Amino acid sequence: MLFHVRMDVRIPHDLDPQARIDLVSREKAYSQELQRAGKWPQIWRIAGEYSNFSVFDVESNDELHELISALPLFPYMDIHVTPLARHPSDVK
Amino acid sequence: MLFHVRMDVRIPHDLDPQARIDLVSREKAYSQELQRAGKWPQIWRIAGEYSNFSVFDVESNDELHELISALPLFPYMDIHVTPLARHPSDVK
Amino acid sequence: MLFHVRMDVRIPHDLDPQARIDLVSREKAYSQELQRAGKWPQIWRIAGEYSNFSVFDVESNDELHELISALPLFPYMDIHVTPLARHPSDVK
Amino acid sequence: MLFHVRMDVRIPHDLDPQARIDLVSREKAYSQELQRAGKWPQIWRIAGEYSNFSVFDVESNDELHELISALPLFPYMDIHVTPLARHPSDVK
Amino acid sequence: MLFHVRMDVRIPHDLDPQARIDLVSREKAYSQELQRAGKWPQIWRIAGEYSNFSVFDVESNDELHELISALPLFPYMDIHVTPLARHPSDVK
Amino acid sequence: MLFHVRMDVRIPHDLDPQARIDLVSREKAYSQELQRAGKWPQIWRIAGEYSNFSVFDVESNDELHELISALPLFPYMDIHVTPLARHPSDVK
Amino acid sequence: MLFHVRMDVRIPHDLDPQARIDLVSREKAYSQELQRAGKWPQIWRIAGEYSNFSVFDVESNDELHELISALPLFPYMDIHVTPLARHPSDVK
Amino acid sequence: MLFHVRMDVRIPHDLDPQARIDLVSREKAYSQELQRAGKWPQIWRIAGEYSNFSVFDVESNDELHELISALPLFPYMDIHVTPLARHPSDVK
Amino acid sequence: MLFHVRMDVRIPHDLDPQARIDLVSREKAYSQELQRAGKWPQIWRIAGEYSNFSVFDVESNDELHELISALPLFPYMDIHVTPLARHPSDVK
Amino acid sequence: MLFHVRMDVRIPHDLDPQARIDLVSREKAYSQELQRAGKWPQIWRIAGEYSNFSVFDVESNDELHELISALPLFPYMDIHVTPLARHPSDVK
Repeated sequence: MLFHVRMDVRIPHDLDPQARIDLVSREKAYSQELQRAGKWPQIWRIAGEYSNFSVFDVESNDELHELISALPLFPYMDIHVTPLARHPSDVK
Repeated sequence: MLFHVRMDVRIPHDLDPQARIDLVSREKAYSQELQRAGKWPQIWRIAGEYSNFSVFDVESNDELHELISALPLFPYMDIHVTPLARHPSDVK
Repeated sequence: MLFHVRMDVRIPHDLDPQARIDLVSREKAYSQELQRAGKWPQIWRIAGEYSNFSVFDVESNDELHELISALPLFPYMDIHVTPLARHPSDVK
Repeated sequence: MLFHVRMDVRIPHDLDPQARIDLVSREKAYSQELQRAGKWPQIWRIAGEYSNFSVFDVESNDELHELISALPLFPYMDIHVTPLARHPSDVK
Repeated sequence: MLFHVRMDVRIPHDLDPQARIDLVSREKAYSQELQRAGKWPQIWRIAGEYSNFSVFDVESNDELHELISALPLFPYMDIHVTPLARHPSDVK
Repeated sequence: MLFHVRMDVRIPHDLDPQARIDLVSREKAYSQELQRAGKWPQIWRIAGEYSNFSVFDVESNDELHELISALPLFPYMDIHVTPLARHPSDVK
Repeated sequence: MLFHVRMDVRIPHDLDPQARIDLVSREKAYSQELQRAGKWPQIWRIAGEYSNFSVFDVESNDELHELISALPLFPYMDIHVTPLARHPSDVK
Repeated sequence: MLFHVRMDVRIPHDLDPQARIDLVSREKAYSQELQRAGKWPQIWRIAGEYSNFSVFDVESNDELHELISALPLFPYMDIHVTPLARHPSDVK
Repeated sequence: MLFHVRMDVRIPHDLDPQARIDLVSREKAYSQELQRAGKWPQIWRIAGEYSNFSVFDVESNDELHELISALPLFPYMDIHVTPLARHPSDVK
Repeated sequence: MLFHVRMDVRIPHDLDPQARIDLVSREKAYSQELQRAGKWPQIWRIAGEYSNFSVFDVESNDELHELISALPLFPYMDIHVTPLARHPSDVK
């Protein structure tokens, strides 16, 4: 089941620099782990912004929330989820 | 080059019923033609709305506008385009 | 799987009065059928508005869209869906 | 009498970590006490966000405000209340 | 129990002129009947707009919705309700 | 002459706790003094929020601004004023 | 007493052309009458829009509403009023 | 003196088709005349929308309004003007 | 050439108190100097807010930006400029 | 390929003053380097704001994001990108 997710990163400017580096590095590792597991099949940078559009593929809303709220950057992101359905014109 | 597109369909309620059927049918055919040509690789229905999130894959902004403005429903949609870049965490 | 849905009814004022009566009557019958089937467990009127907050209980985003887009008033409503997850403080 | 409540948690990032843990723990205890008392019959996590949709069941607007403003996280939440009425299509 | 209500009147310009006159006249009679019954204790014109701020005094959300949805102009107004509680600084 | 005022209190979380207590206490005293003088005839808490809807009764816009800008919490509130006129349906 | 007023003209495109001409011509005459009476001391066109910023000078909110609601274009304008006070830096 | 202008075209769907063709054709001719006169040095289509971003080069706000309000599509566009100043980093 | 300017003052609450007093005092002196020079012919307080509506009279957009960006409070204000043109109904 | 970019600078008021000076100076040097390379053909100050409208000329969305995200002020700006296409009325 697919969900469209927009994430806008808002790390406070006065966060400890090393804490920031650790956060961003753990975020990347976690994201790639989910991608490799097939849970996060699409991720694009929104050109010009510190933001992404993503597609998640999960079993349920609960699994979706569990995965997203475990993001290291979760406390520093504005996130909005949109549930996706099959489009009647989709040829796939 | 990828672009994220949101389309919200707003067909006026007093449009001639046959004209509406024709429009929607031509829209579907045109969309599927672009999908098969690889220009419109993703299309999802936004659950609960007469709207879609799509991804287009084109050579340029000009080609993107040419394809979208040729949509039979173009005069009856609110459309918003977001340019996409490669995300540094993308494993693909 | 639960989804929160807001529906705002916007029937055009120049719709044929009998068509309006039919629509509203079919909407009620369909809504009650879904409620009795356990698909639409909660529906509340937003006080002072021609709008409702509802909770749907479905198997998937696809089933959700199928049910909502079959609403007789679907062409005359603004609808927004929010996926719900279990809250960690929920005692149920 | 039912009220729909949306709560968005915005704990400042520079709050003392122990103070945060205490707040969140007291919030949970207080919420569960109100749920068990029948005052807060529904609480859902909004998938992907540090937010909830809730339904309160109270005697009056005054009781509603008294309960909500006593939330330990009250100073750190954006809250919006919508009064609910019985929907004419409700089968319950 | 008090509720704050904002009403913005949006009568379609192509409504039959006599129908409009009847509507507005019935609206005034109904409003004054509720005012005299103590249900609608305050009504002010928002200066420069075809809008009002009102205070309703009712037993419940259900009664509030019943009274508002019976307004002759209800189909032609944007309405927003805010529940009011006693303010701790109120000297009355 | 009546004015509708909405006040949303936004006290910074890192304000000195004693300064906050003093501010809120002086705010209450000042508000009650204006209420007793007939300048601030109505004040309601917006249920669920740290906000109020008020009605001021003053001689002029200048007097209104003088009274509001002297509020101890003035630097920590978002305030919006709407001028009120007599409503033609008002029975008072 | 001064009020800042923004008016955005939205004449429906299907209004009878002669009715439109009459409206606009009566609007101009009425506006100029109020200007000459000192009630409407300032009127500017917002460059590029069918809109104006104005300043009214009236005795009360009631007089302001009376003057504005008598505008021939009143039913076809979005209007927003802001009460003005003397600025402490004003040298006049 | 440069001004940034956004124009969003909203031609009503029930406008006479020949009237629409005439409007669009006159709009193009007028736009090109202003471009050739150096008054409208830049015009870009916003990809995916029936909208443009433009730059006008005029002597004054009055000349700007005169040119824009004479656009054949002026009654059917939402227009927003932003005055531009020289940027201190501009190398030209 | 006239421009309408709205300024909303947002001085951070943790700014050094003496720095704040100096800023506000220099702002007043600078504003009055521009008023006396005829560059800032109108300034009004927005009743109830720490904001003003102003009219500037300058030779060009560049001069406007130069004057506004030199305001001592410029780093602590939200500012929005609207170019004004002569209104065809203006009797002056 | 052209892109329209709006940048709003929001440097935190408590940033170290020397760090701010360095940032702004490096921003200017970098911007001018891109301008001279033909990548950033247009930059205008939005009159009255610490903001700019710019036009970038790049090979791809990826190149655009690479250039913008390397801006020294990138962490302190709100940025919005709009892809531009050739306008059918453009005479160039």
